[in-house]
Amino acid sequence: MLTLYTYWRSSTSYRVRIMLNWKGLPYRPEYVSLPRMDHRAAPFLGTNPQGLVPALQDGDFELAQSMAIFEYLEERHPSPALLPSDIQRRAYVRMLANIVACDIHPLNNVRILRHLEQRLGLDEAARNDWYATWIAAGLQAFEASLEHWGWDGDYCCGDEPGIADVCLVPQLYNARRFGCDLRPYPRLVAIAQRCESLLPFAAAHPSTQADAVA
Amino acid sequence: MLTLYTYWRSSTSYRVRIMLNWKGLPYRPEYVSLPRMDHRAAPFLGTNPQGLVPALQDGDFELAQSMAIFEYLEERHPSPALLPSDIQRRAYVRMLANIVACDIHPLNNVRILRHLEQRLGLDEAARNDWYATWIAAGLQAFEASLEHWGWDGDYCCGDEPGIADVCLVPQLYNARRFGCDLRPYPRLVAIAQRCESLLPFAAAHPSTQADAVA
Repeated sequence: MLTLYTYWRSSTSYRVRIMLNWKGLPYRPEYVSLPRMDHRAAPFLGTNPQGLVPALQDGDFELAQSMAIFEYLEERHPSPALLPSDIQRRAYVRMLANIVACDIHPLNNVRILRHLEQRLGLDEAARNDWYATWIAAGLQAFEASLEHWGWDGDYCCGDEPGIADVCLVPQLYNARRFGCDLRPYPRLVAIAQRCESLLPFAAAHPSTQADAVA
Repeated sequence: MLTLYTYWRSSTSYRVRIMLNWKGLPYRPEYVSLPRMDHRAAPFLGTNPQGLVPALQDGDFELAQSMAIFEYLEERHPSPALLPSDIQRRAYVRMLANIVACDIHPLNNVRILRHLEQRLGLDEAARNDWYATWIAAGLQAFEASLEHWGWDGDYCCGDEPGIADVCLVPQLYNARRFGCDLRPYPRLVAIAQRCESLLPFAAAHPSTQADAVA
């Protein structure tokens, strides 16, 4: 049995919940509260000394970093896949996923927003401006990439969701939470809406988690 | 023939130069000046509408995002490898690589440092404090992970460099450039030193690039 260290509103945890659901892998959730700072204390640091969720435990093997967890799950449980079989399409969806994983989320996660407020003294408006700046830059890049590369279909690449969609959906959830205007990204919004109606995505949604706070 | 869109001091470009050298793949460098903002203008935006280096062109196929380029090269040219063959070790080195790719570099690249100065009005000392905060958090996580997971060898995982080392070396180059104290990370410094003496790493060093400015 897999154990997933997760927090309901962590978008990287949300990604891994979708992956596990997609592959039909049952897991035991271990809840790590970010507001309570559980991620920076024992016992969690004994599992992941990086002090960040998510982390996955597979028997004796512990693993952190959602994108490394993704590649691990894809190699260990290749079907149902979250990567296309064609080598260029695989590269393409990894590229899209990395727009979220490397260019958007790292700038807007909770430790950064806390630092902006507490260390740099930004007020809420300035903090939200920071958030909106990087989400807009990243989503513009994502939307422009879909157009430029010209792949077609119901999802980011073809008619099956993959790792790009798995990263996109939690990022748009976050963007909405911060009141970002998503009208400039009609393609992304349509893709995410299709994904959200699928059970593996819906069952991973923050609001449906046992540690969710109303 | 491959074309690499690169800037000498971009650490993500530096990563891809190491990958290409490691695999013995000749490439034509196309220089994109970040100070001149070439990456935000034609013709580069016609290759990569994300407006970020590096980008790779392989025949008609264009690809951006250094970590997606890595997985593409590894699938297309598996030998010499930058991933171990064992599935858990592959996951482990990808996890380490992502500490750099997702937790350190995105916070400290040129667009962020510019934004801190120009939009938030931070002076040089405050900007360097920002840089030092995230490099320290990330390198501590990296060093602690090496200890926790307890793999041994001359490099991040065993006696051959891999993708974790490819990401580590440019990040330490950057850290030195910003005057960060690396003494708390003796293992990382030793690994990077071993890597830097290898030709594929040395030939990718920023100072040896044709677009380097003295």
